[in-house]
Amino acid sequence: MDKISISSNFFIPMPVLLVGTQVNGKANFMPLGWCSRANANPPMILCGINKAHYTPQGIRETKTFSLNIPSSDIIEKTDYCGLVSGKTVDKSTIFDVFYGTLKTAPMIRECPVTLECRLVRIVELPTNHIFIGEIAGAYADPAFIREGKPDFRAINPLLLTMPDNSYWKMGEYVGRAWEIGAKMKTGV
Amino acid sequence: MDKISISSNFFIPMPVLLVGTQVNGKANFMPLGWCSRANANPPMILCGINKAHYTPQGIRETKTFSLNIPSSDIIEKTDYCGLVSGKTVDKSTIFDVFYGTLKTAPMIRECPVTLECRLVRIVELPTNHIFIGEIAGAYADPAFIREGKPDFRAINPLLLTMPDNSYWKMGEYVGRAWEIGAKMKTGV
Repeated sequence: MDKISISSNFFIPMPVLLVGTQVNGKANFMPLGWCSRANANPPMILCGINKAHYTPQGIRETKTFSLNIPSSDIIEKTDYCGLVSGKTVDKSTIFDVFYGTLKTAPMIRECPVTLECRLVRIVELPTNHIFIGEIAGAYADPAFIREGKPDFRAINPLLLTMPDNSYWKMGEYVGRAWEIGAKMKTGV
Repeated sequence: MDKISISSNFFIPMPVLLVGTQVNGKANFMPLGWCSRANANPPMILCGINKAHYTPQGIRETKTFSLNIPSSDIIEKTDYCGLVSGKTVDKSTIFDVFYGTLKTAPMIRECPVTLECRLVRIVELPTNHIFIGEIAGAYADPAFIREGKPDFRAINPLLLTMPDNSYWKMGEYVGRAWEIGAKMKTGV
């Protein structure tokens, strides 16, 4: 089939997270889709945030931030955090907040897994800044851990696609990574 | 519920892509989960790749790379690309390859959507490098475009979770982003 050109402003399917910061001494949260692991050892993770947002101020102030994985069942609170800015609305009481060792990276007790991160580097791009953090601590509800590993079926994470602006659940299991393609090793 | 500490080497749910490069004049592909949009305008995207891989050599040589979104139906070929290195196996004939305007970023015709990227910056971290590219072109099969937008239900992308090393389909639609939380605006 022949390809056609489409807008280069394409968005890959994104995991939905909530980034937590302390801005002017108050916990603040914004939903985030631009997130990826950044380094294997030590474990680092990055997030891309538009410069105009309130959250970058908190990351720069405290040199820390949190990343929280919401389950699909708190989709409304998660989405709401993206509809109002911490500049004008106090978002510190939407969730039950707790802190880890870093003390300035507010985490969300309602989220099955939360990470607290120590800022390592900021990469400044034209409209967005990439915040790279070392994962200093990770926390989970025991109900979401199975055989020592995060149980993603139970975690029930949200995905976001754009520009159709749709939230999706994780779906059907289709196979094992670094295994399902092994038959091609001899077959080709 | 009380939280427990888990390994800080935590992996968020990841979209599965194939990064395409030309290394020593030959197309090469590796699956990739560490990927995120990086800048809104101009559109940029980033990927994190372990320094030991073959792919970074191609990105550095040509200053270009491609990102291809495989459908679940080519999961075996996608996974196979992660089982063998371009250092020892010629992966240039696994897919039907085409090129766009950049000429050195091989794209995969079997993938519903493909992006060709011009390298903008490399961020060097201890074990991984982050390659940030401007999206110079985006291509799609018309069958995967609906009302001018990528139709992610049709694209049928893969997700990867670790360390359970599982591939998943995108699942049930659960709501509209920047909308489903709006009722809290007056309700809180």
